[in-house]
Amino acid sequence: MVKKLTASLVIIGNEILSGRTQDTNTAWLAEKLVERGISMSEVRIIPDQPEAIVAAVNELRQHSDYVLTTGGIGPTHDDITAESIAQAFHVDLEQNKEAYAILERHYGIEELTPPRLKMAMIPKGATLINNPVSGAPGFQIENVFVMAGVPRIMQAMFDDVIEKMDVGDRLLSNTVACGLQESAIAIDLGELQGRYPTIEIGSYPHYRGGVLGLSIVLRSVEADMLEKATEELIKLIRHLGDEPRALSLQTAQA
Amino acid sequence: MVKKLTASLVIIGNEILSGRTQDTNTAWLAEKLVERGISMSEVRIIPDQPEAIVAAVNELRQHSDYVLTTGGIGPTHDDITAESIAQAFHVDLEQNKEAYAILERHYGIEELTPPRLKMAMIPKGATLINNPVSGAPGFQIENVFVMAGVPRIMQAMFDDVIEKMDVGDRLLSNTVACGLQESAIAIDLGELQGRYPTIEIGSYPHYRGGVLGLSIVLRSVEADMLEKATEELIKLIRHLGDEPRALSLQTAQA
Repeated sequence: MVKKLTASLVIIGNEILSGRTQDTNTAWLAEKLVERGISMSEVRIIPDQPEAIVAAVNELRQHSDYVLTTGGIGPTHDDITAESIAQAFHVDLEQNKEAYAILERHYGIEELTPPRLKMAMIPKGATLINNPVSGAPGFQIENVFVMAGVPRIMQAMFDDVIEKMDVGDRLLSNTVACGLQESAIAIDLGELQGRYPTIEIGSYPHYRGGVLGLSIVLRSVEADMLEKATEELIKLIRHLGDEPRALSLQTAQA
Repeated sequence: MVKKLTASLVIIGNEILSGRTQDTNTAWLAEKLVERGISMSEVRIIPDQPEAIVAAVNELRQHSDYVLTTGGIGPTHDDITAESIAQAFHVDLEQNKEAYAILERHYGIEELTPPRLKMAMIPKGATLINNPVSGAPGFQIENVFVMAGVPRIMQAMFDDVIEKMDVGDRLLSNTVACGLQESAIAIDLGELQGRYPTIEIGSYPHYRGGVLGLSIVLRSVEADMLEKATEELIKLIRHLGDEPRALSLQTAQA
């Protein structure tokens, strides 16, 4: 039986919504998750507002196996993620002894100022996520993982997060590029999809150097079927008078 | 009275969720919208599934003045946005005469194949959005604007979209960077926020060249208040023994 696992991501960040910061966490996390057989099922970028965080987390944790959040766990007034997550789970926010000890080790007791102590305030019942970069831990409560937003810190925390997640069946993907127009291959591609219902077939036109190209991506947990479908696609492109290019194949051969 | 307008964005795209494609539409759109006094209030990246599109669009169009969607309006089997939007609004999908004429002009009557004609299928009651790059139009229905996902095409369509939107009061933003740690300025910054409740003050630590820095962003539609708060922030940073750097100020002076 195929074990499908999903994760959704909540990006808490006015700085992404304002266009000031280009999000790179989505693509990075999506790739890391897929390596563990976990598909990203939805991403929401929301403002730094408690009600927005509560609503997004409470909705997504019903639909996904895991929810990841990034952002808003620092020492300043706009860091409201921990209290919002406590509110979402109807638990108290409390000073976490383990988090206190981590911050004391990281900063030294005399540098453990009130803003830094704020980072020891963790929802009751949560377990900590290690932060090897800047000390202040993230936390897990049920299927929700709360991480920092700064990519370097988030990525370091994710080493700990991924160990707490189950491993699903790996979704393999084969990409075949060609110079055909989408409309020239659309009917045949739809028929190919009809013959391989367990394979997700996506068609993505793109401009590179001003030239319109087409990438066709086939994804499945079933390597054999994926390889067969990819072989059919390659024949189809040749039949339509084009030569497949820039293949990126995860099945043995195609 | 301040005129606040909001837009949310629905990115329909398995290719973003898989990490294959790095989203750049969010940041581009956020910047263009803010120039017209429209704030991006939420972004959702969802899979190419009708029920996901219907749910996201129907929820967000209640909460935002405008909803933008990108992706899924091409000729292939995985392009399901138009039919999903028709479903969301409980209207029929029909061959739009104007869209037909546009496609006929773009491709020529003999090249108007069934896959291309699919791109003339538009929800009943919608008006078209001009696509100067690849012909196939987007469309508007009520406060929802449906655009292509390929950045070059989406950007060209947006020229038409922005003309159909109202103009809000421009949110101005001042950014002040410094070398202070967040925890060193956290209390004073929280007090500054308390004194200027109409200004959104965000604190964003970042790594550049391995060095941790801090950007503080102040945003408001009120230029005078924004300038006053920025002056106070600059004094505060100096008082804490650091020198403000890399100022990016939209108010006259600060």
